[in-house]
Amino acid sequence: MKIEVINTGTELLLGNTLNTHGAWFGRELFQLGLRISRQTTVPDGDAIRQTLEESISRADAVIVTGGLGPTSDDLTREITAQVIGLELISDESAMRSLEAFFAIRGRVMVDANRKQALCPVGADILPNPNGTAPGIYVPPRLNGRSNCAVFLLPGPPRELYPMYHAEVAPRLRALAGIESIHEALVLKFTGIGESDFHQGIDARLAAVPGLEYGYCAHIGEVDLRLIGSPAAIEAGREIALKSFAPFLISDDGASMEKTIVRLLKAKGMTFATAESCTGGLIANRITNVPGSSEVFTHGFVTYANEAKTGMLGVPAAEIKAHGAVSEVVARDMAEGALRESGACIAVSVTGIAGPGGGSEEKPVGTAWIGVATKGGLTETFRIFHPRNRKDFKLAASQSALEAVRRKLKAI
Amino acid sequence: MKIEVINTGTELLLGNTLNTHGAWFGRELFQLGLRISRQTTVPDGDAIRQTLEESISRADAVIVTGGLGPTSDDLTREITAQVIGLELISDESAMRSLEAFFAIRGRVMVDANRKQALCPVGADILPNPNGTAPGIYVPPRLNGRSNCAVFLLPGPPRELYPMYHAEVAPRLRALAGIESIHEALVLKFTGIGESDFHQGIDARLAAVPGLEYGYCAHIGEVDLRLIGSPAAIEAGREIALKSFAPFLISDDGASMEKTIVRLLKAKGMTFATAESCTGGLIANRITNVPGSSEVFTHGFVTYANEAKTGMLGVPAAEIKAHGAVSEVVARDMAEGALRESGACIAVSVTGIAGPGGGSEEKPVGTAWIGVATKGGLTETFRIFHPRNRKDFKLAASQSALEAVRRKLKAI
Repeated sequence: MKIEVINTGTELLLGNTLNTHGAWFGRELFQLGLRISRQTTVPDGDAIRQTLEESISRADAVIVTGGLGPTSDDLTREITAQVIGLELISDESAMRSLEAFFAIRGRVMVDANRKQALCPVGADILPNPNGTAPGIYVPPRLNGRSNCAVFLLPGPPRELYPMYHAEVAPRLRALAGIESIHEALVLKFTGIGESDFHQGIDARLAAVPGLEYGYCAHIGEVDLRLIGSPAAIEAGREIALKSFAPFLISDDGASMEKTIVRLLKAKGMTFATAESCTGGLIANRITNVPGSSEVFTHGFVTYANEAKTGMLGVPAAEIKAHGAVSEVVARDMAEGALRESGACIAVSVTGIAGPGGGSEEKPVGTAWIGVATKGGLTETFRIFHPRNRKDFKLAASQSALEAVRRKLKAI
Repeated sequence: MKIEVINTGTELLLGNTLNTHGAWFGRELFQLGLRISRQTTVPDGDAIRQTLEESISRADAVIVTGGLGPTSDDLTREITAQVIGLELISDESAMRSLEAFFAIRGRVMVDANRKQALCPVGADILPNPNGTAPGIYVPPRLNGRSNCAVFLLPGPPRELYPMYHAEVAPRLRALAGIESIHEALVLKFTGIGESDFHQGIDARLAAVPGLEYGYCAHIGEVDLRLIGSPAAIEAGREIALKSFAPFLISDDGASMEKTIVRLLKAKGMTFATAESCTGGLIANRITNVPGSSEVFTHGFVTYANEAKTGMLGVPAAEIKAHGAVSEVVARDMAEGALRESGACIAVSVTGIAGPGGGSEEKPVGTAWIGVATKGGLTETFRIFHPRNRKDFKLAASQSALEAVRRKLKAI
């Protein structure tokens, strides 16, 4: 089955927004055993017409994202109807959903929104519980131009992803005649790079019959995706763990922060953070996990030296003598957070995010991390991630959380 | 000048690797006043042929990345030569560079690498100091099929980016000529939706000669992009501000957090945060801004009730009487943060991020926000953003920061 993806959005071509849809669809379709044969990005407006005509003439299914909004450059709905030769009519259920969406939020629905309820005659409206633009599915039998199925989906990931899983994946499976979905497993690792996998286990993974696999590297993390029969996946998992078990974050795709919340819950422990250079990122990541309020209690963002002294009791003389980015300050921050919060375990980070503030001895990218536990010895270590500001914060937060994860595993 | 970008790479369509080339080229070309009219991703191998034929027939310049390596599915060079009707011959200088590349690294050059020195007759070899694959430039006069310039470039960013700057950008500049250079401006708004723009100013923007514009909606934010001559942009800017000035975050593309850091610096004020449901996200956003350490001092992440009491002095009896998500607690958190930090202005957020914890009176998505200023009256207000956990946090942080921005503007 040939599938083409068309992403509309001037911002994607101007470089304001990174197009993550292509990679996301690639991974999702892969789990159905399907592949994208071509992905095209076009600007908002009429530019989609030619691409849509070409794709529909070649593919068995075309997935279009974006251009379903209320504004004048949102033309996906109208142009698709013209290309496949169907009239647009206002869908009653879609209109009711739109009215409800605005009513619940106490917002006034303007006329421009009404066009979002338009649907080609006979096509399916795909409900959008997370936004105003419903999706549209045109089955091959309605397509006046070719035997190609057409999906029109909203652009924002928070609307697109749930709609894909609820409405698109089942229809694609039916179209492709897929009886058994391929299983997929994501193993997350930290502390090793993609090349370690290539060098270490690539040849052995490739030798497993029926196993497809791929790596995806993020900052401070490498995901290994295994796809195939349960037996093939288990064989791949064993190969990976045999070589890299100490670096495993999770073997079910759970994020670092979710893994830590799970460990804390399992051990009945509470957690506090003391952050300087990461500026609240660690607390933010932990509190992204539903149910984290059971285990995360206090976050101290001590950006100024006075905050380190006032909130955590780090002696001002110590900061003066050793600098805010030092082993003793990291230690005192972690122990101060433990004391002030009454938590069972606390982590601290103090470093130089840049672009300013670096020195020869402590260049931008340097940080000290501390992990303190009730009744235990405080551990400290130095890291160096010479990256841009945001990436440095992410890398430092990952190093800090990995230290907490290891500590929790060892307790 | 119409420019199309074609990225080749099976891994881009499988989702193993995010295609960052599109966004990168978008930003680079924009700086030359040029825009991508279409971007297409195709698998390795012969799939590029049809796309290349289509692009060459439409565009003034086509940029192809990838498929210049030594393996059997690296066919970009061969297929391009066929499509434009030129013979491939081995380029002597390219062959010498290849041999030198391997000699310097003490590696043996295999036969497969020799095809990397092949070049269409008369075309320019673009040196690649960072890898084995040289680039190729086919000027329009050599193209036997259309008047389109063709660039073949290596895929890896560390090879592509330097080659683009040294070899591609100057040629594009010459091809495009100075008249087609465009300016661009991004205005960021909050508190109004995309449909408000459509209803409010779309028709007037459309009437400005030579102005191109587009909207990009994020959570709690709409970007208006204006592209055209300086006069057209200024006319568009005036139209937008006449209707929506109170909702303007910035008229130079600066983010909400950067705008706030600027305002704080301009007024010589310091800032503190008291966060419950946003869990450090506000502090994290502010500390993403370089130089924020001059104005941001203390962040209190008071996730547990004991933290609200212990860190900010919110009376436990008050939390018991009114609940943690209440106007009085938001007020006391903001005032507590101001007192404990000594900052000039403080913001607080307390709410229900979900998925659990909601009630009929306070459903998931409810939050109270407080803004306290030295010597001023504390302001409080209630918001409701019924979204998933992460999006709720982002929306609540945006509402809180917008309240701070308005306060700072009014002071």
